[in-house]
This record gives sequence, structure tokens and C-alpha cells, in this order.
Amino acid sequence: MPRYRMIVEYDGTNYVGWQMQENGHSVQAALQGGILSLTGETVSIRGAGRTDSGVHAVGQVIHADLSREWKPYKLRNALNAHLMMAGEKVSVLDVQAVDETFDARFSALRRHYLYRILNRPSPLALEAKRAWWVARHLDHEAMHAAAQTLVGHHDFTTFRSAHCQATSPVRTLDRLDVTRTGDLIEIRASAQSFLHNQIRSFAGTLKLAGEGKMTPEDVRAALDARDRSACGPVAPPEGLYFMKVDYPGDP
Amino acid sequence: MPRYRMIVEYDGTNYVGWQMQENGHSVQAALQGGILSLTGETVSIRGAGRTDSGVHAVGQVIHADLSREWKPYKLRNALNAHLMMAGEKVSVLDVQAVDETFDARFSALRRHYLYRILNRPSPLALEAKRAWWVARHLDHEAMHAAAQTLVGHHDFTTFRSAHCQATSPVRTLDRLDVTRTGDLIEIRASAQSFLHNQIRSFAGTLKLAGEGKMTPEDVRAALDARDRSACGPVAPPEGLYFMKVDYPGDP
Repeated sequence: MPRYRMIVEYDGTNYVGWQMQENGHSVQAALQGGILSLTGETVSIRGAGRTDSGVHAVGQVIHADLSREWKPYKLRNALNAHLMMAGEKVSVLDVQAVDETFDARFSALRRHYLYRILNRPSPLALEAKRAWWVARHLDHEAMHAAAQTLVGHHDFTTFRSAHCQATSPVRTLDRLDVTRTGDLIEIRASAQSFLHNQIRSFAGTLKLAGEGKMTPEDVRAALDARDRSACGPVAPPEGLYFMKVDYPGDP
Repeated sequence: MPRYRMIVEYDGTNYVGWQMQENGHSVQAALQGGILSLTGETVSIRGAGRTDSGVHAVGQVIHADLSREWKPYKLRNALNAHLMMAGEKVSVLDVQAVDETFDARFSALRRHYLYRILNRPSPLALEAKRAWWVARHLDHEAMHAAAQTLVGHHDFTTFRSAHCQATSPVRTLDRLDVTRTGDLIEIRASAQSFLHNQIRSFAGTLKLAGEGKMTPEDVRAALDARDRSACGPVAPPEGLYFMKVDYPGDP
């Protein structure tokens, strides 16, 4: 069966998350529903990352096996038309035909996420559900300094959800950069893979660093504690964006 | 009575527009409701621009006369708390005490608007209701060239709504620039004042120029015709943002 790799954008606000669940409508179900509506086929697609409810994506990657050959742009346009008709907030940005060795989840070399904080006294109107609103001023340089203590190969038990299903809490964090442009603070995180709630746990802890409540040494000590209770409050999902996935052979 | 100047952001999607109307909830009514809830005063506020339903603002300016003196930041925070409690998508970004010679509408020297087009084959998920989706490729340089024929002092009858209430169709357009960054085409317009639907009429006509259906000479001829029927289809409201207003003495 021909396999297709797709890049997918979604507004995560009204979904229960990426993964199919019994308690509500997921992005995965939206896409599978679009494919069923278009081709009559019931397929099971796989995504590169399992985003939580409220988390957005501009570069989720999935693969799907379909029974017939499609020109990639025709598949993209037809699937988007069915998603729009169904009122989904999901858009397929790109389709590529790939061979069966490609797996959106297991072939991924690196995943890139962005966490957005709007740091200003006034609440969000246009950016509501698109960023975390933090009214109190944050020192982004202090956040960046604290973030650097987390980069590298570590046991991230402190920064993963109690519900995380990964067998090991050890990951290699390649990048955790904090920058500011006006009121917007951006946290960019890259790794081969992340634990459940890892980036939102980082963001919540780095906020405390930005408020002066934790030094870089405190953040390092929280990491070394390997204890979930050492983590700051988990940041809300609406600030998190799944940006991009790297695969072997990509230009 | 002390007068306050405020900078206001709003998501125009679910409002009937800036102006109070009988057929629905307006941004003006939202703000007046917030002031009533906060101070018990029924005030009539004036805005620098009357945006239509679906049009957004990051820099609408209003003035309001209140019976008591407020520290500006306290008024901002208290009013925002009441707007949030009421579920409004309106946020007060800044408050300044001004003297009674200041009038948000009549003191304005220049108004600045932005029109956003997302020019890509795939529909909008995250940017739905935040930009105009145009799937067919647009040549932004052709759009910019056509836009330059509109800059200056002209009779803009072609580019104003049949419902425009201005006594004269003559305006001086200071700037109409078209730029592209990736998929995003931005049209920036500045003038002391605009006619009803003027920028959306420009955007709809410039789209035709970007598709190669109108040359700069055609756009100039449409202007010279002083005939509403010479205008391209009016662009939808969701791409338009009221950005900023300049006043005398501003830094």
C-alpha cells in the first residue's frame, strides 16, 4: 500500500489532544475521519508526537497507508476540503509519497517545540488560547541561564508527568533557549524525544526563574532531585506549539 | 471630569463591530459595560476608528470621562478584570490621564492599519479568523506596484462602501505598502482618516493585481473612474487590524 507522509497544522483548543480517546474528539480522529470521508478507508495513522489537549501544532508529522496512489497535491487538497467541510481546525500543509520504511514516530531524529509566553500587564484578547499570559515581569536572561542547566543527557524524572508512559526518564535535551521580543518570550526546545509534560514542566519552572524565585542552581538541584515534587507548576497547554520534526535524508 | 485615553486590543470575530448597534454586541458596548460594572457610571466613549464586524485591533484608541481620579495602571487593571469576568475579548493595554482637549477621534493625526493575507494552498487552522486565506499564488511585487498608484490625494469613490457616511470621498493616503514574509503578505496603510471599507476595498483590488488580473494602470484607471463598480471584490474583515493612532505631542 502506498504510504504518505504529511505535515499537519492544528489549533489544539477544542481537541482532547492528538491521541484517540474515548472522552472526546482528537486530532487523530479528525484526520482519520477526513480520510474515511475522502477514500472510504478506515485507516490508523501515526503521529510523531502525542500533543495534549490545548497544545497546537504547525509541524506535526504523520504517516498513513492508503489503498491507491495519489498525486501528493491532490491528496492534500482533497483531504483539506473534507476536513473543512467537517469543521475541523486541522490543515494538511504538505503531503509526500514515502516508502514503507518511513515511520512518523520511530524514524524521527529530532523534535522541535516552541513555548510562547505573553508577558504584559493586560490580559490576552487576540492571543487568547495562543500563549500563556504572565502579568508579572519575567527576566528572560535569568530564564535562559536556568534553562542551560537542563540541556544535555539527564534523568528528567522531575520534569515528567506522573502519567508518563515512557520506560526510561533519561533523555538528551539538545536545546532549551529563551529569548524575548517585546512582550513575547519564546522558549525553544529540541530533542530526539520528550517525556510527557516535559516542556510544560520546563516552562513552569523557568517562569519561577524569571520571577527570581529560583536561581540556575535551584533549577539544577530540582533536576538532580529526580523528584516530581521539585518541579514548578506545569505551564498551561495553550502556549505550546509542535513546530517541526527532522528525519534522515531531509534537506 | 477627568479624561482618560486608552489603547485597546480586541478580537473582532464575535462583535458587530466597534460602534453600538441594535442588532448585537459591539466593542464599544463591551467597554462601556466594563466601566459601568467597575464605577457604576454610564459613560459614552469615543473611539479613533469605527471598525467593522470581524475586524481586529491592537491599537484602537478611545477616550472616556470618569467622575473620579484614578491612577492609570489601577484603572487599566480594574477595567481588565471586569472585562475578563464578562468574558469579553477586549483588553485595555494602556491608560493615560489627558486633558479635555484630547479627543480620540478628532485629535488623531494619522491612523495605521494592517491587512494580513495568508497565501498558501492549505486552509488556515491556527490563523482562522486572523487572516484572509488566498490559495492561489499572489505576486506581492505586482501588488506593491499597483498600490503605489493609490498613494496621495485622491477622490476614493471607487474604494468606499455605498454606506459610507463621510461627506467627502477625498482623502490623502500616505502609505500603502505590500510586503511578503514566507506565506504571509502584509498590506500596511496609513492616512489621517479612511473611508468606510477603504482598506478592504484596496486589499480586494490588490489581490487581483497579485493574480495578474489587473495591472498598475488598471488600478489607476479604477481610481480615476470614481465608480464603486470599478472596485475589486471587498476583502473579508478577518484580515484587517487597526494598529495605531498618532496624536499631537506623542513621542
